[in-house]
Amino acid sequence: MLINVPETVVADALRGMAAAHPELTVDVENRVVVRRDAPMAGKVALVSGGGSGHEPLHAGFVGPGMLTAACPGEVFTSPVPDQMVRAAAAVDSGAGVLFVVKNYTGDVLNFDMAAELAEDEGIQIAKVLVDDDVAVTDSLYTAGRRGTGATLFVEKIAGAAAEEGRPLERVESIARRVNERSRSFGVALSACTTPAKGSPTFELAPGELELGIGIHGEPGRERRAMMTSREIADLAVDAVLDDLRPDGPVLVLVNGMGATPLLELYGFNAEVQRVLGERGVPVARTLVGNYVTSLDMAGCSVTLCQADEELLRLWDAPVKTPALRWGR
Amino acid sequence: MLINVPETVVADALRGMAAAHPELTVDVENRVVVRRDAPMAGKVALVSGGGSGHEPLHAGFVGPGMLTAACPGEVFTSPVPDQMVRAAAAVDSGAGVLFVVKNYTGDVLNFDMAAELAEDEGIQIAKVLVDDDVAVTDSLYTAGRRGTGATLFVEKIAGAAAEEGRPLERVESIARRVNERSRSFGVALSACTTPAKGSPTFELAPGELELGIGIHGEPGRERRAMMTSREIADLAVDAVLDDLRPDGPVLVLVNGMGATPLLELYGFNAEVQRVLGERGVPVARTLVGNYVTSLDMAGCSVTLCQADEELLRLWDAPVKTPALRWGR
Repeated sequence: MLINVPETVVADALRGMAAAHPELTVDVENRVVVRRDAPMAGKVALVSGGGSGHEPLHAGFVGPGMLTAACPGEVFTSPVPDQMVRAAAAVDSGAGVLFVVKNYTGDVLNFDMAAELAEDEGIQIAKVLVDDDVAVTDSLYTAGRRGTGATLFVEKIAGAAAEEGRPLERVESIARRVNERSRSFGVALSACTTPAKGSPTFELAPGELELGIGIHGEPGRERRAMMTSREIADLAVDAVLDDLRPDGPVLVLVNGMGATPLLELYGFNAEVQRVLGERGVPVARTLVGNYVTSLDMAGCSVTLCQADEELLRLWDAPVKTPALRWGR
Repeated sequence: MLINVPETVVADALRGMAAAHPELTVDVENRVVVRRDAPMAGKVALVSGGGSGHEPLHAGFVGPGMLTAACPGEVFTSPVPDQMVRAAAAVDSGAGVLFVVKNYTGDVLNFDMAAELAEDEGIQIAKVLVDDDVAVTDSLYTAGRRGTGATLFVEKIAGAAAEEGRPLERVESIARRVNERSRSFGVALSACTTPAKGSPTFELAPGELELGIGIHGEPGRERRAMMTSREIADLAVDAVLDDLRPDGPVLVLVNGMGATPLLELYGFNAEVQRVLGERGVPVARTLVGNYVTSLDMAGCSVTLCQADEELLRLWDAPVKTPALRWGR
């Protein structure tokens, strides 16, 4: 691993992020990353966070049109409520703050506590829980479904609504709608190695893959002998469509888990698009890349979001963050 | 690997790229990726290309403010002259075409031949050779220095000059200046696996790293026991500064080789910035990410470019490609 010692991995990364992104305010000591121009007068702020190791999620999504602040925890470990309260206080303009929470037990508990503490300080808080992963219900770290790729859709689309000046209850309801209309399924071709452990989190032989994987190396649905890109796309897209059944155009995220080359991800996208075509699902927009990762895990996930006209317009709205940028 | 069969990896990726990027024209059969709005009246066009496996380089850099077209070869194999001529013909507005060529023997020979063929067709061609890697002179695939990370600087800055409407000889001289002022040094923490071979290109034990690596798994300067991020930054930056000796601010590219998590890359950037500070080298801009990769290799490279006022202004100019976007 390209690190000094496991204990300083997150702080080192935040120092490096501060140096590369002068448009962000990075509080290394307290582990809060904030848009430099926050708070934005009259606008709702979005705060998210979670364990580190999923970069660019979340700090790489801080900027105009997406998150207002992010709180990175230790690797694969929830941030603490103090970070969340600090972030909320730094970005609240008086219009309130939406917490975007991936459904992991630690994150849920800590964001709940942070919401109470922030409200005690007079900050209006709303929360949206992201739970899009159809692979398993109840996993190692979660009661109910895990939050994975749809987090990107929620943060982008709700962030655009906040940027437009929508009130908190409206931003919250849009975020909720995005989550309700999104589903994901992931596959691991290798395990990941956490800095603290220094060895793979589980054993996966070179000729095997794990279907229905989460983003922390936790177990999936089943292990199989290696499959082709075509077979994996059939299985992953059908798993999502079994649950989502969209009756209109979808947003597609073909996401890499960290170590899968972009060459392979684009090839996999061709197969995902083929399956969607065969199933009669029209595609509105497609994003391909390593966005919601699991350290150095090889593998991929597919997230679909059934987009109505409003969601599509908000998806297309300008965004300007380290990892996601388009428009003006 | 997330593939169907090795024989279709490049074609599959191009089909997936076409689906994700309607702003590009992707000729899958002939392996040419072109800006949809090319040719641009009165403007010089930039064409680059090389072996696949380095994504997002080059096709991910096609768009306003950077490349006009890219020609991907097979994995780690030069594209053929026919692709380059086809690309040049597709993008030439009459103002001429600049070929951006990484210094590998196959690429150099094929771009030379393509230049002759294109000129026979009445297209004015200029060429710039990128050879920024200070690690080794004469490697497995190269006479002289290899072309690595500086390719991104050359394509971005010369692309901005072309977008401004500068004439061919001026775009060429700017490209040449960027290359002359850029140096790189890379480190591998693992080997990469090509689809055709299906196993690592060389043996590197978990506790070892290879210093001075190229982007094809070719040998570097030496093998050592694992070092810390701090030690690697000292060694890599000093190797670059031994050769570059900048007397003004630099552009910094902290580049991942494909499988190194962004968390680690940002941490490494903190160390790179520390060394530059200690050596008295001011930093103008920093870019961190997986841009010039080597399939699923873990590792990183540092590229510095001594930027004068004009190069800095061109670096900051708007760019709108799949992998690099900023500005209007």
